[in-house]
Amino acid sequence: MREIDPKSMTPKEIRHLIRKKEWNKSTSGVANGYVQANLVILKKDNALAFMQYCQRNPKACPLLDVTEVGSSKPYLLAEDSDLKTDIPKYRVYRKGELTEVVEDLHEIWEEDMVGFLLGCSLTFERALVNMGIQLSHFENNTAVSMYKTNIPTVKAGIFEGPMVVSMRPILIKDLVKATTITAKYPHAHGAPIHIGSPELIGIKDINKPDYGEAVPIPSGYVPVFWACGVTPQAAAMESKVDIMITHEPGHMFVSDKKENDQSFY
Amino acid sequence: MREIDPKSMTPKEIRHLIRKKEWNKSTSGVANGYVQANLVILKKDNALAFMQYCQRNPKACPLLDVTEVGSSKPYLLAEDSDLKTDIPKYRVYRKGELTEVVEDLHEIWEEDMVGFLLGCSLTFERALVNMGIQLSHFENNTAVSMYKTNIPTVKAGIFEGPMVVSMRPILIKDLVKATTITAKYPHAHGAPIHIGSPELIGIKDINKPDYGEAVPIPSGYVPVFWACGVTPQAAAMESKVDIMITHEPGHMFVSDKKENDQSFY
Repeated sequence: MREIDPKSMTPKEIRHLIRKKEWNKSTSGVANGYVQANLVILKKDNALAFMQYCQRNPKACPLLDVTEVGSSKPYLLAEDSDLKTDIPKYRVYRKGELTEVVEDLHEIWEEDMVGFLLGCSLTFERALVNMGIQLSHFENNTAVSMYKTNIPTVKAGIFEGPMVVSMRPILIKDLVKATTITAKYPHAHGAPIHIGSPELIGIKDINKPDYGEAVPIPSGYVPVFWACGVTPQAAAMESKVDIMITHEPGHMFVSDKKENDQSFY
Repeated sequence: MREIDPKSMTPKEIRHLIRKKEWNKSTSGVANGYVQANLVILKKDNALAFMQYCQRNPKACPLLDVTEVGSSKPYLLAEDSDLKTDIPKYRVYRKGELTEVVEDLHEIWEEDMVGFLLGCSLTFERALVNMGIQLSHFENNTAVSMYKTNIPTVKAGIFEGPMVVSMRPILIKDLVKATTITAKYPHAHGAPIHIGSPELIGIKDINKPDYGEAVPIPSGYVPVFWACGVTPQAAAMESKVDIMITHEPGHMFVSDKKENDQSFY
């Protein structure tokens, strides 16, 4: 096999490797400049309410593509792709419990399933870093800290729950810039939902995230909180639907859309 | 009854008059500064595909609110409102044919219906006029010209068809300004989809619109085309669903949301 730098691979090349089971790692840093997306798969009976949940909570759940009932092809994001095979690892939840981690969905996909692809923070993190803003977890390739807040989402059918946020420490001098840059990416969670004072949004201990890893906040830095794509997954888990499939964290869908594609905005 | 200037009425006041059958006219010019919305009501069986159609064609079908199945309450746009009563006139289509025009839906609403509210061009027209751009139909209170184009929309389930566009003649010197201003309102169709040369988008005779009225294009003006909210209604009519309910043109849903509310964007 030809050695390729993952950063300069095209989305099609990385999806091809994943499909052939030659890539089951994180997609962090691959196909630089292309949108990666969070995955949620549900059965048709839950699909309308879940789509309404996303429409009502667009900062946490920016919808990029929804497949036809029974189809695993997300035509808007990548014409030749297949959600059954093109993600390195999947998590399968049954009645809210994680039951399997699998590398393809051939055995699990059912004819009444619908795939949802949602924008992810990688897009705005790259934009921040490109504009000279330091993101420690991004540079160290560690997980981001995520917290359940006391901010309720807007309920839709069986889907409800608190907004989950991700936190990045930002230098005081960069707070305005970090806010205005991310505001330009509404399909990747957009502007922060809160700056500083974790206790005001119900976070009791900033050193004890509910998901991900604790990220130290150095002196001169302020914790900044963005709506997080874990929100809809948490809502779907809480609803204890018969089956929900997601990507394994960090193992994303790599789309053909450029991160700066204005057709999203 | 106290005389109120319709322009300065609150959305709640105008909805209240409509509900009491004291206002069955066009809502053009009422409750200045508040978002008005297009209405489409469908049965649950068609709702997911219609919502997907809107998500795939956001310039023509900017989704503002979708009700729960069986509910006529659009909570995002106006908490105390009811889609069964708060629109001055409704059109009822059965298998694609207009069968009734009614002033409320008490007799027609069914327990498996879902209401969709979509952004309308009134929002960006007001923004253009406020910025000093002349819109002849707006000033004369006549209908805008609308055309079927040769631009296909992205199909979703049974919903498909050509993009319908609205046309406004714009002074050559204002073309850039009209484009950049409307680009700021993605939830009201956003930037134009085409400038000049009607034949390039399949319009054979600019003086013969498919919907609305012919609008003259004076010397020095260029026809500018925006995606139009008739697109999803036309797609739903073509699909010949058992029942679809829309607003009577010009008789819109008046929401509590300010036109410049950034939570849409």
